[in-house]
Amino acid sequence: MEYIAPLQNLIDKFALIRGVGRKTAVRYAFSVLSMSDEAAGAFADAIVAAKRDIRHCKICGNLADGEICKICSDDKRETSVICVVEDERTLMAIENVKEFKGVYHVLGGAISPVNDIGPDKLRIAELIERVNAGGIDEVIIATNPTVDGEMTAMYISRLLSSSGVKITRLAYGVPVGADIENADEVTLTRALDGRREI
Amino acid sequence: MEYIAPLQNLIDKFALIRGVGRKTAVRYAFSVLSMSDEAAGAFADAIVAAKRDIRHCKICGNLADGEICKICSDDKRETSVICVVEDERTLMAIENVKEFKGVYHVLGGAISPVNDIGPDKLRIAELIERVNAGGIDEVIIATNPTVDGEMTAMYISRLLSSSGVKITRLAYGVPVGADIENADEVTLTRALDGRREI
Repeated sequence: MEYIAPLQNLIDKFALIRGVGRKTAVRYAFSVLSMSDEAAGAFADAIVAAKRDIRHCKICGNLADGEICKICSDDKRETSVICVVEDERTLMAIENVKEFKGVYHVLGGAISPVNDIGPDKLRIAELIERVNAGGIDEVIIATNPTVDGEMTAMYISRLLSSSGVKITRLAYGVPVGADIENADEVTLTRALDGRREI
Repeated sequence: MEYIAPLQNLIDKFALIRGVGRKTAVRYAFSVLSMSDEAAGAFADAIVAAKRDIRHCKICGNLADGEICKICSDDKRETSVICVVEDERTLMAIENVKEFKGVYHVLGGAISPVNDIGPDKLRIAELIERVNAGGIDEVIIATNPTVDGEMTAMYISRLLSSSGVKITRLAYGVPVGADIENADEVTLTRALDGRREI
């Protein structure tokens, strides 16, 4: 037996979310049905509002609700140290440790020939521009310790090698093969402390 | 560090879904952000449409996109046999077996003193009305084999005891395909009690 159309449609939409399988999508759809009209309406509005209001910071690419993100507009941050991350979730993981006082550069992913993601699809040119504009002492490359992340780190470090800026990589406190966002705070702190020049 | 407001709001909404924890809600919210505007818009629309268009069947309480659900409006079903279930998902599970040819009655939950759900909050009065209207030979009570489900089954069977209608309960036992050694004690006791001659 098929679900009635509006329910099946909602199930299909939930199944589009990364990591949500068929059975889970059914559970979620039923959960939404059991919400009040107001709660469900607010949920739908939140999706629309998030897509409409969230932009990428003009400087670093981080999520922002204005032109410039909170970090870049915070004058207590050391703008001479840039931490390069693949995405906003890695940025948040590092921020939560409250150890790093510099600023970020969000690439929007990692170089991945398998997925047809070349350097041109990432915010690498913007990073080089930022470094070339001057005032940068150090670039910490905090891409994930995966094949793609390593490749991206190598690519960026080569591009910046002639810039005279100190280029470092997070120390391998981060377990190899895992995502940085899942690392615990102690591991992340160690990784920051033990960063090495490459 | 906090997420920016529109993102935090979306995370909070995802966390309202039953079974979605904090970390999962964050993952889902980021996944929605990475969707196209069209896909995210369609997701929001699906939520609104599901809440707006899905009603409960006037006869059995099953989900319907009109007044009467597909099952109740199917004249091939035997309306003399009513299977009483807690919710639509149990109904779907039984429907998927394609064995049952009768109709259903969806209670909308089970009696649960702990959660302050009394018989008046369920569609029990409607069931009694259906049975009293006549033409019913058997009521199969298929509430879940939990404390609440058992209590509900007992309550309904007592209310219907004077109706002269045959009242049955789904058989309990060791699930087919499972090892007997892994069955819990209650299930094994029930399986022994319900043993049949072969």
